[in-house]
Amino acid sequence: MIDTALFGAGRIGKIHAANLARLPDMRLKYVVDSHAPAARELAAVHGAEACSAEQALDDPAVRAVVIASSTDTHAELILAAAARGKAIFCEKPVDLELERARQCARAVATAGVPCLIGFQRRYDPTFAALKARLAAGEIGAPEMLIVTSRDPGAPPLDYIRRSGGIFKDMLIHDFDICRWILDDEVVSVHASASALSDPAIAAAGDADSTAVTLRTRQGRLCQINTSRRAAYGYDQRFEVLGSRGMLQAGNHRPTEVTAYGERAVAADLPEPFFLERYRQAYAAEMAHFLEVMRDGAAPRTTVEDGVRALELADAATRSWRLGRVVELDQV
Amino acid sequence: MIDTALFGAGRIGKIHAANLARLPDMRLKYVVDSHAPAARELAAVHGAEACSAEQALDDPAVRAVVIASSTDTHAELILAAAARGKAIFCEKPVDLELERARQCARAVATAGVPCLIGFQRRYDPTFAALKARLAAGEIGAPEMLIVTSRDPGAPPLDYIRRSGGIFKDMLIHDFDICRWILDDEVVSVHASASALSDPAIAAAGDADSTAVTLRTRQGRLCQINTSRRAAYGYDQRFEVLGSRGMLQAGNHRPTEVTAYGERAVAADLPEPFFLERYRQAYAAEMAHFLEVMRDGAAPRTTVEDGVRALELADAATRSWRLGRVVELDQV
Amino acid sequence: MIDTALFGAGRIGKIHAANLARLPDMRLKYVVDSHAPAARELAAVHGAEACSAEQALDDPAVRAVVIASSTDTHAELILAAAARGKAIFCEKPVDLELERARQCARAVATAGVPCLIGFQRRYDPTFAALKARLAAGEIGAPEMLIVTSRDPGAPPLDYIRRSGGIFKDMLIHDFDICRWILDDEVVSVHASASALSDPAIAAAGDADSTAVTLRTRQGRLCQINTSRRAAYGYDQRFEVLGSRGMLQAGNHRPTEVTAYGERAVAADLPEPFFLERYRQAYAAEMAHFLEVMRDGAAPRTTVEDGVRALELADAATRSWRLGRVVELDQV
Amino acid sequence: MIDTALFGAGRIGKIHAANLARLPDMRLKYVVDSHAPAARELAAVHGAEACSAEQALDDPAVRAVVIASSTDTHAELILAAAARGKAIFCEKPVDLELERARQCARAVATAGVPCLIGFQRRYDPTFAALKARLAAGEIGAPEMLIVTSRDPGAPPLDYIRRSGGIFKDMLIHDFDICRWILDDEVVSVHASASALSDPAIAAAGDADSTAVTLRTRQGRLCQINTSRRAAYGYDQRFEVLGSRGMLQAGNHRPTEVTAYGERAVAADLPEPFFLERYRQAYAAEMAHFLEVMRDGAAPRTTVEDGVRALELADAATRSWRLGRVVELDQV
Repeated sequence: MIDTALFGAGRIGKIHAANLARLPDMRLKYVVDSHAPAARELAAVHGAEACSAEQALDDPAVRAVVIASSTDTHAELILAAAARGKAIFCEKPVDLELERARQCARAVATAGVPCLIGFQRRYDPTFAALKARLAAGEIGAPEMLIVTSRDPGAPPLDYIRRSGGIFKDMLIHDFDICRWILDDEVVSVHASASALSDPAIAAAGDADSTAVTLRTRQGRLCQINTSRRAAYGYDQRFEVLGSRGMLQAGNHRPTEVTAYGERAVAADLPEPFFLERYRQAYAAEMAHFLEVMRDGAAPRTTVEDGVRALELADAATRSWRLGRVVELDQV
Repeated sequence: MIDTALFGAGRIGKIHAANLARLPDMRLKYVVDSHAPAARELAAVHGAEACSAEQALDDPAVRAVVIASSTDTHAELILAAAARGKAIFCEKPVDLELERARQCARAVATAGVPCLIGFQRRYDPTFAALKARLAAGEIGAPEMLIVTSRDPGAPPLDYIRRSGGIFKDMLIHDFDICRWILDDEVVSVHASASALSDPAIAAAGDADSTAVTLRTRQGRLCQINTSRRAAYGYDQRFEVLGSRGMLQAGNHRPTEVTAYGERAVAADLPEPFFLERYRQAYAAEMAHFLEVMRDGAAPRTTVEDGVRALELADAATRSWRLGRVVELDQV
Repeated sequence: MIDTALFGAGRIGKIHAANLARLPDMRLKYVVDSHAPAARELAAVHGAEACSAEQALDDPAVRAVVIASSTDTHAELILAAAARGKAIFCEKPVDLELERARQCARAVATAGVPCLIGFQRRYDPTFAALKARLAAGEIGAPEMLIVTSRDPGAPPLDYIRRSGGIFKDMLIHDFDICRWILDDEVVSVHASASALSDPAIAAAGDADSTAVTLRTRQGRLCQINTSRRAAYGYDQRFEVLGSRGMLQAGNHRPTEVTAYGERAVAADLPEPFFLERYRQAYAAEMAHFLEVMRDGAAPRTTVEDGVRALELADAATRSWRLGRVVELDQV
Repeated sequence: MIDTALFGAGRIGKIHAANLARLPDMRLKYVVDSHAPAARELAAVHGAEACSAEQALDDPAVRAVVIASSTDTHAELILAAAARGKAIFCEKPVDLELERARQCARAVATAGVPCLIGFQRRYDPTFAALKARLAAGEIGAPEMLIVTSRDPGAPPLDYIRRSGGIFKDMLIHDFDICRWILDDEVVSVHASASALSDPAIAAAGDADSTAVTLRTRQGRLCQINTSRRAAYGYDQRFEVLGSRGMLQAGNHRPTEVTAYGERAVAADLPEPFFLERYRQAYAAEMAHFLEVMRDGAAPRTTVEDGVRALELADAATRSWRLGRVVELDQV
């Protein structure tokens, strides 16, 4: 039984707690949240204890931490947990500052602990099946990747101001998809962006619509298009063109009802947002965290993946601001 | 906390036990199975106790029973549980003999206990959404219902011989769908059937392919087509034609991957069989059982529904054997 | 160059004339219509001559006739054309009276002329491709056929009264599909029907909704469901279950636009009615008529097919009226 | 009756000739081709006369010319036809040299003749329906456009060497789609490209895969992805995200057959190539040419559109070669 401490009792923290509860070999021991009532409430649901960060980190019985607190606390918690030899699961991004994220990666390497970053899309049944079929050679060598990633609506301005910008907040997932699916590293980035849905977003120095092109070492091309506002829901698709065919990952729908009316044939909208769309993925990533700790499985989403995605987000932000292509210096 | 006894530790018993375990207000106290090791194993998983039927039934703390044992035990357990005032959930069919099923219905009515029959399809998200939209008038008055219901492969001959025949074993679900969707009672049945996949099925006096037409009091028409063998998986669809449109309930797929190859555009096969297809439905029906007991909700699938579906299965069997239309004497 | 006479300058006559005009080896010489202005107008479009039936039939230069006039004139024109040794294309049905249709078949056989019946669905690209793939063994042996055939709206009552009833007027096409797709003959028919859209249809002794089950010599089952009124357009689908899979023929749509709105994902309705849905089929059947005449190709839809479909329509009508299964005496 | 001269008796010339033949008010008088037998053969099919370019241009009875000859002859023929006051239909591109294309545009303006450029996609039923629905406000203001445009296979190297490069040869259509759909002008272009399918293409100084981002005056973003080789056929899709929804234009398929096999559910591949995919579009654009001449309709695809698309192709080529964003100086 692996005693676990959860940092963050918000929306995503609750999901991790519930998924953890279903795993026979993990036990939620502590819930930590700067808002004490939230910690107590979530702890009560799962028979855990609300406590301070120090208490949770300093308890040697705690072998695993799940970091689902606000972004500005990620790095500190990773460093503290790594220093104490605990296995780490941390929501993306590692940090908004690239240098700080790299520091975390070095600390994790030094400590020799597993550190999974919450790129939950890699665990989605549709995306994972596509990746497996691509790896099995079904469409030959991949040549192009087109990623569509649109949210149903923009978050509050206050959130946007603290988010690090659309590239670090939203596209970081899409950058990870590109690296994962193409199994290749990016050499140059071009990003264009606009604020079309709300002038306040532009006033805050951010954008709500982006069009990004990545070029990989092997000359593969990847295009990402995103929007903060898709009136029809949460749109998460990608397609890979290979030398012998194409694989598409489509949206999931709540039901398979089709209505033939007097004006159109209508199907369900996509799942409304990430909590519904990635419900299975969140459960699978927590199960994977257990596999890593218990069985020594190789982590599927490492802190290094987190750093690389952040590098791309940084490069894209610069490309957009400067209006030119940005080269990545590959190690 | 409602203490519950589960009868039957087989495939479907395990599913009910797991769904029960997730409900905060229900507790699995006993598992009963004629094969003792199976009972012990399942009881161990959920912290319950394996015991005899008598012990479980005679424990006054047990307020609910879930009957997932073999068909020939259903009626006896229903009668015993009803006599003791326990709430009942029982898998379909109530019994293979119509008279015996009616006896159960009377006993349940006399005892005043809730008795839900496991027509889990009514709880499927797709089917339930269709029903709700139909009830909301989206396509006007329903006029025709076409039900496609095909299994991926025939069960063992031994099972078939004890099954009561394809109409009682397989179509009983489809008859329930017809009554539920059309909200109307059947006045006549015509059934045609063949054994096309395996001569041994014919030799056993049964069929593997059926074509049934039902006519309701209001003159609505319903066609059901079934097969014991769909090479492509478990095919569960229906469509309702109404005066202002049509609603279709389609199959569910494991993933939303689409492959464009050199010969075709390919999507996933439907979910392979009922355990996968109706995973959500099984969870929802157990949650509904709790609602009925705890909140006094009206049962969505009653023992009366079980009797009516059996009447239709009987009528269809006679229609097929006699080669003629069979009228139902409606009360 | 094959000189051709067209009987009937109505909607379907105009289509045949236009398709004929595109065939390099056929020439429309005469147009005959009891309504003289219609004949003159259509003749003018195509550089043909309006004339009487006698003149067209008695001109030895006319080697082919296309009969698209009202049903009650079909038999007489077939007999007259066969007697003069002309190749015949005739719209369905051969006649409303089975004995009269059989008389036509005998006359055609005696004369040794080709006589194609206008079961245009056999020439539809989707239906023909499905048939070819079935014949190539793609899904093994066919076992069940489900036919959905719905019109967008009922014709005028006046038409219905002269139509011979829904089974002869509308289902005759579906009966032909069953014989063609299953390549098997029917041994028994059960038909149920209702008038649900308009009481005046019932008052006229007809129905607007039918549910038919056919059983073939080889024990295959076929279900047909039809309606005179599908609010969403012209619905023409069928599916064949075989021992190794299933083939579905779906509707055609005017465009491939998909709209993601705030409430649903919407695609085009099916093509509105038969003129649009079977545009390509009409062209292909006229081209086939030429192949038969010029190249000696075997006719794909013979007068015998017309007789057989009428037998089924007769049997279905009787089954509905008598409320019982009707056996067909197969030769 | 408008006498017309056709330049070019190749694949696309034959299509224009056949579509022209169906228009009652146009008559193909001359066919011109540097390969005389091709001209004679096509002329014979349509009752026209093979002749020299001079004869066709100098015949004052010829009021319209259709230019479907090789690209290097377009400008000269446009200039000659404009000088003689003839209405012009010319395949894309106007010319490979932007300055020469602009010269044609000026000549056409001076002559006051209509000059349609063969951007046939604007006439495609699916694309035109999408444009109309967008214009009607169905999804609010357009914000992003994603264009997928892939050929089934690369043309011969010899063709590629004379093609002007993939941006002028292939993407010119996509650039036109962007301007047409967004109804906005482009201010900057970024293009990335690779030769992934065949090293000989790289050796010829060209690419076979491109990823292009356009930014419009109003800040809208457009991404185009293209490939010379899609193993699954001709892939022509685009989607527009608007403030209130999204419209997608999908591929057309030869048939609507769906096969449920033991491994997948399979639908038809897209139409194999442009001749099949745009059959209806080619007919519609020739009908529109007649409308313009006979009824004075405003041309839907002008020589100015041809110049603008070429500007974008030039800019994209430069962007790719220089590895930087290229600004367009908008007039």
